[in-house]
Amino acid sequence: MKGKFITFEGVEGAGKTSVLHALTDKLTDLGYEVVATREPGGIDIAEQIRTILHDRANTKMEERTEALLYAAARRQHLVEKVLPALDEGKIVLCDRFIDSSLAYQGYARGLGMEEVFQINQFAIQDVMPNLTLLFDIAPKKGLERIAANKNREKNRLDLETIAFHEKVYEGYQLLHEQYPNRIQKINANQAFQDVERSALDCILAYLK
Amino acid sequence: MKGKFITFEGVEGAGKTSVLHALTDKLTDLGYEVVATREPGGIDIAEQIRTILHDRANTKMEERTEALLYAAARRQHLVEKVLPALDEGKIVLCDRFIDSSLAYQGYARGLGMEEVFQINQFAIQDVMPNLTLLFDIAPKKGLERIAANKNREKNRLDLETIAFHEKVYEGYQLLHEQYPNRIQKINANQAFQDVERSALDCILAYLK
Repeated sequence: MKGKFITFEGVEGAGKTSVLHALTDKLTDLGYEVVATREPGGIDIAEQIRTILHDRANTKMEERTEALLYAAARRQHLVEKVLPALDEGKIVLCDRFIDSSLAYQGYARGLGMEEVFQINQFAIQDVMPNLTLLFDIAPKKGLERIAANKNREKNRLDLETIAFHEKVYEGYQLLHEQYPNRIQKINANQAFQDVERSALDCILAYLK
Repeated sequence: MKGKFITFEGVEGAGKTSVLHALTDKLTDLGYEVVATREPGGIDIAEQIRTILHDRANTKMEERTEALLYAAARRQHLVEKVLPALDEGKIVLCDRFIDSSLAYQGYARGLGMEEVFQINQFAIQDVMPNLTLLFDIAPKKGLERIAANKNREKNRLDLETIAFHEKVYEGYQLLHEQYPNRIQKINANQAFQDVERSALDCILAYLK
């Protein structure tokens, strides 16, 4: 891989999506070739899978089905969009990747991080991010931000309890302990410009 | 499991779907409680996944994505429909199950039967069929039958070459060698009534 694969992770309302878009512009202005994308989705087949995952009518979705659907969307997005961009030497900024599956399905849903890693390994075949920014904020605070944002459309995962989001947060902390070099924490409990600045500094330090 | 889980497998055009429906009526007349179902699909979320898998516009679907989507549909169908029916002591007749993934994705697509088994094991958690009927017919003959059936809607898998279907056939033969007790061959190169008779005899011999 000639390019760099940088993923953005964290609980809901941590601001990672907004920061990702702002940094895409900043890095482009600095002369980098950047591709901004997201999971699940990013290309047609994965967006079709996203529709099933996010549909609030799909309340019967079982946790292993959910984990397999995320892995399927991940695979298609990786081969169709991420890998070609990395081959061209671009910087890929991706909103969520394997750590989301490990924290949400592996830890918070209780499927086990190791088992969820295995099915994801079938999907990614050792392609791990070069750098992961973990936007760190208390889940309660993140959910308050989301509640205050009237433009945000609620999806199936927004129906979860605060206890579930607390578990996701714990899962991310464990991942940070497991991958202390790859995963860098960004204090997301700051004003937007400061979060953006911290994230940009982190990426530039890595690219140097 | 108090009930019996019986799956129908084979290449396209082997007649398994028609036989399954005919046998559902026959077994019901004989006093058995029967649930007839199919994969991928059978319940709402799995039918949504089926739509993605069969859409002829999804020509870019990568083979590992495909394998994960089948496993996801399998999981949801299993927990929502198959296991509850088995718990109630019913006979579940299912059009395709794990052997299809092993023959199509594992063998014919070249992903490897063992690796495809692993992701399916995440989905099925050791729930294997009690009995599998393998409808045995030369792929060429099966495809001729399909071509002659004007009512059958063509899906994404019907776009595959004869060479692909020959590989699927080989994959099923390997599975038959691997599971000689579970998988029973039915000669599908006979008149419909004779195929149906053979299949019914096989099931009744098992249920005895």
